[in-house]
Amino acid sequence: MKIHNFSAGPCILPQEVFDRMSQAVLNFNNTGLSLMEISHRHPEAEEVMRNTIRLTKELLNVPNTHEVIFTQGGASLQFVMVPFNLMRENGGKAAYLDTGVWASKAIAEAKRMGMTEVVASSSDKKYSYIPKTYEIPSDADYFHCTSNNTVAGTQMKSFPDSPIPIVCDMSSDIMSKEVDISKFDLIYGGTQKNMGPAGNAVAIVKKEILGKTGRNIPTYLNYQTHIDKESTFNTWSVLAVYGAMCNLEWLKKIGGIPEISKRNKAKSELMYAEIDRNGMFAGPVALEDRSDMNATFVLKDENLKDEFDTMWKAAGIVNLKGHRIVGGYRASMYNAMPIESVQVLVDVMKAFEEKFG
Amino acid sequence: MKIHNFSAGPCILPQEVFDRMSQAVLNFNNTGLSLMEISHRHPEAEEVMRNTIRLTKELLNVPNTHEVIFTQGGASLQFVMVPFNLMRENGGKAAYLDTGVWASKAIAEAKRMGMTEVVASSSDKKYSYIPKTYEIPSDADYFHCTSNNTVAGTQMKSFPDSPIPIVCDMSSDIMSKEVDISKFDLIYGGTQKNMGPAGNAVAIVKKEILGKTGRNIPTYLNYQTHIDKESTFNTWSVLAVYGAMCNLEWLKKIGGIPEISKRNKAKSELMYAEIDRNGMFAGPVALEDRSDMNATFVLKDENLKDEFDTMWKAAGIVNLKGHRIVGGYRASMYNAMPIESVQVLVDVMKAFEEKFG
Repeated sequence: MKIHNFSAGPCILPQEVFDRMSQAVLNFNNTGLSLMEISHRHPEAEEVMRNTIRLTKELLNVPNTHEVIFTQGGASLQFVMVPFNLMRENGGKAAYLDTGVWASKAIAEAKRMGMTEVVASSSDKKYSYIPKTYEIPSDADYFHCTSNNTVAGTQMKSFPDSPIPIVCDMSSDIMSKEVDISKFDLIYGGTQKNMGPAGNAVAIVKKEILGKTGRNIPTYLNYQTHIDKESTFNTWSVLAVYGAMCNLEWLKKIGGIPEISKRNKAKSELMYAEIDRNGMFAGPVALEDRSDMNATFVLKDENLKDEFDTMWKAAGIVNLKGHRIVGGYRASMYNAMPIESVQVLVDVMKAFEEKFG
Repeated sequence: MKIHNFSAGPCILPQEVFDRMSQAVLNFNNTGLSLMEISHRHPEAEEVMRNTIRLTKELLNVPNTHEVIFTQGGASLQFVMVPFNLMRENGGKAAYLDTGVWASKAIAEAKRMGMTEVVASSSDKKYSYIPKTYEIPSDADYFHCTSNNTVAGTQMKSFPDSPIPIVCDMSSDIMSKEVDISKFDLIYGGTQKNMGPAGNAVAIVKKEILGKTGRNIPTYLNYQTHIDKESTFNTWSVLAVYGAMCNLEWLKKIGGIPEISKRNKAKSELMYAEIDRNGMFAGPVALEDRSDMNATFVLKDENLKDEFDTMWKAAGIVNLKGHRIVGGYRASMYNAMPIESVQVLVDVMKAFEEKFG
């Protein structure tokens, strides 16, 4: 039976990515060697990193003012790197928007490093909306926000005009829609949603913002290190970067960001239309802030939970459970998810309504 | 033609590791899903991490006083984590032994954090030996050494009695021979030699040494974070950890550390006997400090370089070039390298002597 994988991440990737990685693990580029047993300094391995950086720039129209780097440690290490690289050591200050669990974790790391002002928070309503009225202090070193909140299922549809450098954690919606990179000073994210398998983080850094904090930054945590070494400062996660390369090649082939943006919109419209139409379910998120990546919904009658769970499992759907913090259901519809899988879920919701409504 | 891969890392791994990983990328544990598209919180993914930690403890006889963790960022990030976790913020001091390129990099990171005394260095002779007469200051917070130096090809055959906690970077010889873990307070390493593919670091931490520095440690850099979360604090490098698990299962199956230790000794004896016997070559490293993992050697007559290179390439040997810093040749003979491959190299060296000697 066809499996419909709604995992929130690591998540579905195109089948051709799995096929190419499986092959490269056995015999990489007909070298007779596994991709895993060649040095990261091998010319063909370095070509993998160069291609991945080049494709990221091309697909996202990254301007020359910015550089693309890949590091390890996921977004969690980026939470540490951001204040190290951007918050002045003496008298430094950062401004953060608190839109969820991941934003809160980023804030906690900034607070360790210096004064950190939370300009607004939606924690008052379980992060079910994106705050929109707040002021960004012009005396802070940077403003940080999170574009998509996987746990609650909210997404920033626009970004504020910021008088200071703007930093955005785009872990879960980078490469899913068009973004004007030039408006951001730093974009970062774990790669395990729309960019590739787990094991990497990506950062898109406006070069001129670096080197201004007065801090003695540990080498690995310094963005400049990875820029200077073209993301090959130390042994990088070869297989994960290869997976990202294959995935970005797939994205380019199907038409790049303009095409995937349309597909993602079609999927989320189908999904939210059913949540709104179907009397058995409710969407907890403010309408205008609904995420195109992660649609969260709950049963109006929790007593029917076992019945609904049985039905979607029987249809081949997996990983639909909501995050343990919020419960309910979460349909993650990342780039590689075909609309047919969303339709299967919608059909199950309809059948559930017919049977128990 | 059979390929004999002497890469210094990432390096050869057992064929069954490649086979199992290739399969898991397509269909993991008969779930019908790729290992890359399931959440790291999926019970079967968490089982991969638990197994990898358990096997590491079992194979190395890790005592209950210590905990095993896996993180990202390789040894280079460990260079940062060590002083963060062990060097007191006020009046702290560290002592380092400088045995090569990697030790020097570790020292550079410690120096950013506080007073760092280099107790001895073999840089005077291009790191071709291990310093043995030095004093470890009893007022330092810890003593740091590097057990195997991949670039020069030296290896510590014994470790000093230390009046302070002893920390060892074992990136390139962990799991290759028996080590009394209880004598160390912290062992760490990148995993891309004898433990698995690139994308992870391992640390074996004596729990009681943590939490004593007074530093406000960034969450990701705090060993305690990874101990508390059993190495699943954030999205870990799923595929790389799975590779490590498969590799450790292979090691256990063939007889564990006692067996691999014998095999590694046989390979290095075969290799060094030929370097010493063959009049065409010289080994630059002090005899008693020769690494069982990386045998370095040079041609006595550099004019014959092209001839020798042609011969070993024709025999199916790859990745024999020395590190760009030192030149010459380097035969890396990690766990998965069969002695037959070393014999092929030895035979080429003999044939080269017959032809040009």
